Amino acid sequence: MGVGSPSVVAVTSTVYVIGIGSGDPDHLTLAAVSALQKVDVVFVIDKGEAKEDLVALRTEILHRHRTPGSYRVVEAADPVRDRTAERYTEAVVDWQDRRGALYAEMVAGLAPGETGAFLVWGDPALYDGTLRLLEGLADPEIEVVSIPGISSVQALAAAHRLILNRVGRPVLITTGRRIAGGLPADVDDVVVMLDGGTAFADLPDADVADVDVYWGAYVGSADEILVAGPVLQVREEIRRVRAEARARKGWIMDTYLLRRHPAER
Amino acid sequence: MGVGSPSVVAVTSTVYVIGIGSGDPDHLTLAAVSALQKVDVVFVIDKGEAKEDLVALRTEILHRHRTPGSYRVVEAADPVRDRTAERYTEAVVDWQDRRGALYAEMVAGLAPGETGAFLVWGDPALYDGTLRLLEGLADPEIEVVSIPGISSVQALAAAHRLILNRVGRPVLITTGRRIAGGLPADVDDVVVMLDGGTAFADLPDADVADVDVYWGAYVGSADEILVAGPVLQVREEIRRVRAEARARKGWIMDTYLLRRHPAER
Repeated sequence: MGVGSPSVVAVTSTVYVIGIGSGDPDHLTLAAVSALQKVDVVFVIDKGEAKEDLVALRTEILHRHRTPGSYRVVEAADPVRDRTAERYTEAVVDWQDRRGALYAEMVAGLAPGETGAFLVWGDPALYDGTLRLLEGLADPEIEVVSIPGISSVQALAAAHRLILNRVGRPVLITTGRRIAGGLPADVDDVVVMLDGGTAFADLPDADVADVDVYWGAYVGSADEILVAGPVLQVREEIRRVRAEARARKGWIMDTYLLRRHPAER
Repeated sequence: MGVGSPSVVAVTSTVYVIGIGSGDPDHLTLAAVSALQKVDVVFVIDKGEAKEDLVALRTEILHRHRTPGSYRVVEAADPVRDRTAERYTEAVVDWQDRRGALYAEMVAGLAPGETGAFLVWGDPALYDGTLRLLEGLADPEIEVVSIPGISSVQALAAAHRLILNRVGRPVLITTGRRIAGGLPADVDDVVVMLDGGTAFADLPDADVADVDVYWGAYVGSADEILVAGPVLQVREEIRRVRAEARARKGWIMDTYLLRRHPAER
């Protein structure tokens, strides 16, 4: 800061947002381990879902890297989103406001000099809202630090031994909802996250006749399931395997790459 | 395999392709450390560039996790690409063939039961060709295993505390060459890798009037440089800072996110 800066606020507390990977506790980075080991408080948002395996991974990671009793766990229930509201946007905005207030309240519980952490699946930079919710803190005494983690996209690629891009070409990372209307014409490698179903399997045959799918569920974990092949040949198998796994475990987390064959050029 | 399978080939050697991150030795994952610790041979491709810092990072990582003398290092020079050839495509194909032959020859030097590793920058799944070159081995006795790493995209996002996507929206990962013709109309968040210059700074003012850039060089390392702001305001600063850093260090590795402001909807 220049001479005569009106005030210098000392950072007194640090909040880490730590990416813990998508299922393999060994996907944690050394930086994540180091941050975990500094933490006084672990903040846990209970999303009310039956994701015992996810809770188990978080618990395993904490037990591997911390002595029980050497840190506090502060839990809170995620605010309920009003899915019956007539105005979708207003309901979402209201929900996000309540979540932001909850995060601010949790973080405000840190004593001066203490360090807290939110443990997030995958990478805080990809389809996770924690950094966005903490941005609203607007408390200059609290420093927010993002620690990258291996995302499910990367775990999927490693499991299939894939390179996501082809030489000199782009990769699009998008959502199930967005491909439901059709694949983009100008990108031949599309990674789909947050698909509540199997949007790719409902695309018209003509759109996917030259497309391969590399699909994976619970990637990186002991329950990892992988299926790959031409969409027209494997889409029914993926539908079936996915439905079975979801019924058996009560939840599913899956990701896939759609790869269009190169056009004759 | 079913009854009467004609032959079962035992895997005798393993080759790890290990993502070691983009500059911070603490971005290594526990799985990468574990793989490094099993390795008999580290394969090093000398690309003939003055990237002493990159060599230093690789050396630091090996020294941190292995006892000197407990593994062999096998070095080879990357084949020279004929940039004077009249036919670009043929020259590239020939170059890739020679690289594939080199990788096969290096890997063939593993004794039965030995484990080798290629250490690659970032993540083997993003703009790295090692997995592709090893795919051509076609030796069923050699198992290739990909270990994901934190890419420069993720290190950039963490340094700027960014979430790459906006809620429910896609992210495009592409190259400098591809945005030189203009930004895509249908994606508002574009990550640019492999830009030999500052392609974004040459786009017409009208195309970038509502675009912010989050730029970083040597992300994750002690020399990290970050600049962010509206393209029209910071592009000259990035050009200058980039040229200075490149001149000072002899090389540069940089990445950036272009983020278009949301349209009024």
